[in-house]
Amino acid sequence: MEETSLKDQDQKKLKPYALSEIAHLKVHGRTTGDLAPLTLFWTGSGIELNAKGSELWIEVEADYDQYESWITVLINSAAVSRQMLTKGRYWVCLFRGMNPDRVKNVRVVKDVQAMNGDPGCSLRIHAVKFDGTFAPVEDKPVKIEFIGDSITSGEGAVGARTEEDWIPMWFSAVDNYTYMTAEALNAEYRVISQSGWGVLTSWDNNPRNVIPAYYEQVCGLLTGARNEALGAFRKHEFASWQPDAVVVNLGTNDAGAFNNPAWGDPVTGEAHKQRLNEDGTYNEEDLRAFERAVESFLGKLRKNNKHAHIVWVYGMLGLPLMPSIYRAVDAYIRATGDRRVSVFQLPDTTDETVGARTHPGKRAHAKAAEALSGYLGGILKG
Amino acid sequence: MEETSLKDQDQKKLKPYALSEIAHLKVHGRTTGDLAPLTLFWTGSGIELNAKGSELWIEVEADYDQYESWITVLINSAAVSRQMLTKGRYWVCLFRGMNPDRVKNVRVVKDVQAMNGDPGCSLRIHAVKFDGTFAPVEDKPVKIEFIGDSITSGEGAVGARTEEDWIPMWFSAVDNYTYMTAEALNAEYRVISQSGWGVLTSWDNNPRNVIPAYYEQVCGLLTGARNEALGAFRKHEFASWQPDAVVVNLGTNDAGAFNNPAWGDPVTGEAHKQRLNEDGTYNEEDLRAFERAVESFLGKLRKNNKHAHIVWVYGMLGLPLMPSIYRAVDAYIRATGDRRVSVFQLPDTTDETVGARTHPGKRAHAKAAEALSGYLGGILKG
Amino acid sequence: MEETSLKDQDQKKLKPYALSEIAHLKVHGRTTGDLAPLTLFWTGSGIELNAKGSELWIEVEADYDQYESWITVLINSAAVSRQMLTKGRYWVCLFRGMNPDRVKNVRVVKDVQAMNGDPGCSLRIHAVKFDGTFAPVEDKPVKIEFIGDSITSGEGAVGARTEEDWIPMWFSAVDNYTYMTAEALNAEYRVISQSGWGVLTSWDNNPRNVIPAYYEQVCGLLTGARNEALGAFRKHEFASWQPDAVVVNLGTNDAGAFNNPAWGDPVTGEAHKQRLNEDGTYNEEDLRAFERAVESFLGKLRKNNKHAHIVWVYGMLGLPLMPSIYRAVDAYIRATGDRRVSVFQLPDTTDETVGARTHPGKRAHAKAAEALSGYLGGILKG
Amino acid sequence: MEETSLKDQDQKKLKPYALSEIAHLKVHGRTTGDLAPLTLFWTGSGIELNAKGSELWIEVEADYDQYESWITVLINSAAVSRQMLTKGRYWVCLFRGMNPDRVKNVRVVKDVQAMNGDPGCSLRIHAVKFDGTFAPVEDKPVKIEFIGDSITSGEGAVGARTEEDWIPMWFSAVDNYTYMTAEALNAEYRVISQSGWGVLTSWDNNPRNVIPAYYEQVCGLLTGARNEALGAFRKHEFASWQPDAVVVNLGTNDAGAFNNPAWGDPVTGEAHKQRLNEDGTYNEEDLRAFERAVESFLGKLRKNNKHAHIVWVYGMLGLPLMPSIYRAVDAYIRATGDRRVSVFQLPDTTDETVGARTHPGKRAHAKAAEALSGYLGGILKG
Repeated sequence: MEETSLKDQDQKKLKPYALSEIAHLKVHGRTTGDLAPLTLFWTGSGIELNAKGSELWIEVEADYDQYESWITVLINSAAVSRQMLTKGRYWVCLFRGMNPDRVKNVRVVKDVQAMNGDPGCSLRIHAVKFDGTFAPVEDKPVKIEFIGDSITSGEGAVGARTEEDWIPMWFSAVDNYTYMTAEALNAEYRVISQSGWGVLTSWDNNPRNVIPAYYEQVCGLLTGARNEALGAFRKHEFASWQPDAVVVNLGTNDAGAFNNPAWGDPVTGEAHKQRLNEDGTYNEEDLRAFERAVESFLGKLRKNNKHAHIVWVYGMLGLPLMPSIYRAVDAYIRATGDRRVSVFQLPDTTDETVGARTHPGKRAHAKAAEALSGYLGGILKG
Repeated sequence: MEETSLKDQDQKKLKPYALSEIAHLKVHGRTTGDLAPLTLFWTGSGIELNAKGSELWIEVEADYDQYESWITVLINSAAVSRQMLTKGRYWVCLFRGMNPDRVKNVRVVKDVQAMNGDPGCSLRIHAVKFDGTFAPVEDKPVKIEFIGDSITSGEGAVGARTEEDWIPMWFSAVDNYTYMTAEALNAEYRVISQSGWGVLTSWDNNPRNVIPAYYEQVCGLLTGARNEALGAFRKHEFASWQPDAVVVNLGTNDAGAFNNPAWGDPVTGEAHKQRLNEDGTYNEEDLRAFERAVESFLGKLRKNNKHAHIVWVYGMLGLPLMPSIYRAVDAYIRATGDRRVSVFQLPDTTDETVGARTHPGKRAHAKAAEALSGYLGGILKG
Repeated sequence: MEETSLKDQDQKKLKPYALSEIAHLKVHGRTTGDLAPLTLFWTGSGIELNAKGSELWIEVEADYDQYESWITVLINSAAVSRQMLTKGRYWVCLFRGMNPDRVKNVRVVKDVQAMNGDPGCSLRIHAVKFDGTFAPVEDKPVKIEFIGDSITSGEGAVGARTEEDWIPMWFSAVDNYTYMTAEALNAEYRVISQSGWGVLTSWDNNPRNVIPAYYEQVCGLLTGARNEALGAFRKHEFASWQPDAVVVNLGTNDAGAFNNPAWGDPVTGEAHKQRLNEDGTYNEEDLRAFERAVESFLGKLRKNNKHAHIVWVYGMLGLPLMPSIYRAVDAYIRATGDRRVSVFQLPDTTDETVGARTHPGKRAHAKAAEALSGYLGGILKG
Repeated sequence: MEETSLKDQDQKKLKPYALSEIAHLKVHGRTTGDLAPLTLFWTGSGIELNAKGSELWIEVEADYDQYESWITVLINSAAVSRQMLTKGRYWVCLFRGMNPDRVKNVRVVKDVQAMNGDPGCSLRIHAVKFDGTFAPVEDKPVKIEFIGDSITSGEGAVGARTEEDWIPMWFSAVDNYTYMTAEALNAEYRVISQSGWGVLTSWDNNPRNVIPAYYEQVCGLLTGARNEALGAFRKHEFASWQPDAVVVNLGTNDAGAFNNPAWGDPVTGEAHKQRLNEDGTYNEEDLRAFERAVESFLGKLRKNNKHAHIVWVYGMLGLPLMPSIYRAVDAYIRATGDRRVSVFQLPDTTDETVGARTHPGKRAHAKAAEALSGYLGGILKG
């Protein structure tokens, strides 16, 4: 954890490797492709190694103005540690004292979403130190991309039910339906997500805080010069990773917008508001705008993911926009003839399954993953 | 995590406190009583604070020749992080960015047992840095002491089933029947435990590696000059903490000794061996020796824990010595008239509940805690 | 069970009552209102009594050409017996030997659907014999009507997974999401259901075997002169029982029709077939016909159930028509402005939850009831 | 159900068989061996057939002064019906309308214990009517005998928690740890049990109401001339059925006796009472008497079951006599050298698992069966 510790007698045998030197490195998540260093933007992103040796460290560089990063380490698919990464560039030990003759599968997973709200937030991996050799990491037979909001970011999957602070500590990539669904289907997966964001607007009616606007960049929803320098705003090379399924879990914040005040553009002064009728129902025109945004996003998804089955999922925090989602998907199919798009309702969060911040807890994620992996499994076999 | 990080703008407001300065510090586990620093010897030991403020760090000092320490951090009773403590003296952030006006209950728990096999292993807490104020930690209505071996040390409660290495990473104080039982009964608890050790001998027939021999010291089973300096070998002040129940989970290694080779004393050359009969049953004389050791330990427990109900529990990894345990407890009661002693069988570990290293997994610990808390609850009410 | 048994010494004290003599009789299910005798047509129908006495019998009259009736008896909400009712008019003992001073809540529930395929099938209750007094049965605060097919009839909820025979033995009204949902919501409920039937056609493309065609009769889907005489074809008096929610679980057989041969009308020679496109997708025109049938049925439901929330549920055996159901409900709402209609997806049956005849087993019904009662509970509170 | 029903057109093809005519009849439970008729004495006893045909009836003859019999019918191991057998000799239909070409495994199980308290209680099976052929019933690889009290009789496994009447309706042979354990181990099993009875005395201190006194008769605890005529008091032929395991679940009523008034012999006037000490603990001398009774019963069990492993189980309703049971088993082993005897604690009944009459409910039985089948499975493999 400190430079001094690497000077120890024991560590003499540890050999440093730049990530680019490791033939069998597996990178998870949407990145720039750069390895010197590797910047991890999205929740669920990380590295995977099959490591035959007794001791392994990684060198991380973490920064933030407000929201720190967290990682979970999995050894042979078991989560063994989860820790906050405070500021600085330093070494983190992943394991030590293990049988040097056995291969360990090691994954380091970023547990926190890309942080639109903190231009200073970044997490980079520079190098590893190891006393052994690396073996190939086999490719999984299925690839899934998940796109979503706080639910998909795992907000509230960690922490007591009483928690109300909006802080990275309550986010989890692993106690998360995305990870659990991928495990159930033996799939590699990526996550594109941002708390509070939607398809047409964010929870607070801001039409700029929407996933579709940034979908084609590596991690375009980030902000600040640092992230620009790290390549977050580059165009994403979709050809490099084509998923078999794209799961979109958006709409929860678009629904919330109807019940929140208008958002005023600080520059133009223009306001935006998804309106309620006097009887409390949703304004039809605004619903249509949402539906057009869904249709349009489906077009963008198909353009970039040629062979994927696209599943729009919804329901972990209620169902108010489900009719609109069905209408929009229907309209998209009718307009395009593209039949590899469907809608799937996920189980609602209950008093028994809720987590922190009135978000889905670990058990709600597990129930969602059980339902979704059954549904996706049927489609992917079919 | 590094000194530099404490120089940040944000951290200017953090004020350092020596542990001894904190009026409302709650220390868990058997310690020397010293706070400058506080040395944590046993698994499950740690500190607890009710902290009203936004950001809290602790300064740890960790050392080892072979086996590193791990900690779990609980915020409002939810486990939020678990991490390896590599060598050095440094600051660990427990939380940051939280609502400064709310009180957070924070516990830092040592996840790894006292390490008899590593004289260099130690974990100290020197100080905290905080931007708020501390509130009192209420005393729990019940106190329980757990005494045991690898099962009670939580060996294998973390990690994949395939794991075979004997390393600290697989130990957990929290995914552990001790913690779970205490939570279910709203009890404060302490743990005295060592993997491989027993009542009469250890798993390998060593009559010195037995818990009773060290029970009256703070942490007498540790070794080395460092630990001596830290006070591990001092006489424990039993009057300072009198439990309502003492749960002894020993016998599993005493049973194993019958099936393992003799232990030879490297100094005297004397050998010791718990013998099997030719038909594979246990030698009667050696069983009696085990039973006398149980009886004797009960006497020592009673001497030091005047009002506690003592429960000998057994069965999480099989039942071979249960008749002997009943005989020994029976003999003890008969000899002393002390009726506040009983035996309780815990549920066996199954294919569904096993963890790493063929030890009880998290689910086996949960089942044991469910049974034990039901039993203890009845006694403690009675 | 035989007349002789009623001549016993013990039974001297039993006093016979025609059903119409019992002030506090509660009848469940849609019936003609006649009590001399009471004919039970639908699954889940039956009688309920609060009986203060030691022994209670009912006189049943059962008949059939092919499919016999079954009943379940619940005492204080616990299922205590389930039995086949073979032909004849005879007495069935519900309980005996009980404390004469305590009130027992007793329900006799018909476990088998109305049998369109057996004109000779009927079940009547003539009388009770009792040695005590009857107390009032309190009305439940909520009323729910369930409309469906084999799933709602509980086909396969009883029996081994290997069973393939189509016989009444595998049907259950109690191991059924209808009963379970009603229990969870403390609701009185009724069931209108028929295996194999749909909205536009039955599983085999027969446009006459559809629930909407018979919805306004007491039990119009029955056949034969006997059932006519029993009043099955009379117009149902909707005013007599207005539900708070109507749950429609239809569409599964309409989907099946696309994959089955055409049905030929034996009289006119006309054929009917829901068609597949060459690529295996559903023919658009035929989908529209299904959707119009759904719309039309919603209109009929609303006409007869003025204040009910109508929920179309679907998914316990797959989701192929869900987009059509959403379209139809959407079109209905648009056309009528009636907003108290919604769609809710139920959890799919899995290898773990399947029952006999590849239908939902008891666990699939329990999962459906858990999801549905959560959803309905929200609506009924709102 | 009535003779008339057997005159139907459909039933013309049904052919009556005396039980003795059926080559492949399997009889479960301890009986006299007579088949004309077959008298079922014990809970869990019954008949099993592999029946290839469409319709099957049995002719029963049931009688009682007070406590009626109940049966459960299992088709292909699924419980499909459970019914009270009121007085008389009549036919009960087990199934009808099934595929005549498939073999159905059919079991009729007596759901109620032998009734010491009702000399008039009996249940006989005279004949079957069937339209097909019988196939052999394969022998199971393991045989288990269960001996116990109300717990083993399944008292309270059926019925609401509020029930307090002592009536047959609340007894179940199938929602019972005996049946569940046998199923888990693929074992044939028999049950010898009586509510309220013990080893030394019954719950009310009666030294005559003890299982050991009647163990060597077919069903010696019954009373009355009718049962004598049916052969209940004959010496049981142990050679005809030698179990691999004998599970004794006795002691719960022996413990209760300490807290109940003395029993006075109505003939001799002698009183018997298991005494409490002034401090509420058990009188030592009376404990010894219980232990001698256990020892003595073990001797009787071994005499009659030469190769069985004998397991004394205890704990489903508390553990107060466990030390005595261990002492007694220990003494027995010491005195005889017979090592195939052990003790196993069963999980206690909790608020979540309790059934009617404050006895173990279905879930308590399931938990006991899970633990016991794990333990027995280990022994039977070993």
